[in-house]
Amino acid sequence: MVKKIDHIGIAVKSVAEARLFYENLGLVCEKIEVVESQMVKTAFFQIGEIHIELLEPTSEHSAVAKFLAKNGEGVHHIAYKTDDIQGELDNISKTGCKLIHETPIAGAGGKQVAFLHPKSTFGVLTEFCMK
Amino acid sequence: MVKKIDHIGIAVKSVAEARLFYENLGLVCEKIEVVESQMVKTAFFQIGEIHIELLEPTSEHSAVAKFLAKNGEGVHHIAYKTDDIQGELDNISKTGCKLIHETPIAGAGGKQVAFLHPKSTFGVLTEFCMK
Repeated sequence: MVKKIDHIGIAVKSVAEARLFYENLGLVCEKIEVVESQMVKTAFFQIGEIHIELLEPTSEHSAVAKFLAKNGEGVHHIAYKTDDIQGELDNISKTGCKLIHETPIAGAGGKQVAFLHPKSTFGVLTEFCMK
Repeated sequence: MVKKIDHIGIAVKSVAEARLFYENLGLVCEKIEVVESQMVKTAFFQIGEIHIELLEPTSEHSAVAKFLAKNGEGVHHIAYKTDDIQGELDNISKTGCKLIHETPIAGAGGKQVAFLHPKSTFGVLTEFCMK
């Protein structure tokens, strides 16, 4: 069972520009990290028990670059924390939900992550993550 | 200062259909409420300290109906909880952020709410709310 929301991923053209808005809200940028495998620069802000994750593409081949070209800036995904990511994937798959990843892949910060297909999740790209 | 995320608003065509996905994740629908002033049917699911709020338009004149026509289903807004909504609006306005509401309006469940303009928030429709 999903326990809480781990983070909300937000696609932006520029982390350097967008972070100012979140800092103006009073949030503190905890870290900026380039995730080479995903071709993104990320910035993390803690708020309560969850994080805001800004995502800036570092290549036009990045999935986030394609998202920006199609949708413009905005919420990219919602990530749910779980203690049993494979069990979660198996369970949701049994309900007819289409998966992008049948088994977890390595994500940032040593996490295991897997995405569900937004066509099965009413338009919200949904991630499971486990540390 | 914003303290935590209160809820994530998600625009859907049908609450009756979309709620099944969140129930399949293990979440429990706490209430379904029609908010006449916003012309939406809402469904709330608690997860950790925040809520998922599904939003289905009850009229083609609803802002959510216009959002769906333009963007399809997906995340509609992020709402931040504050103890001083007018102070929050004044502060963010001073940074150059454009507001949809200069002063709070009445929202669902006796809350005061106000929205910032997504053109000033890097594509994310952002709400402040206070109970």
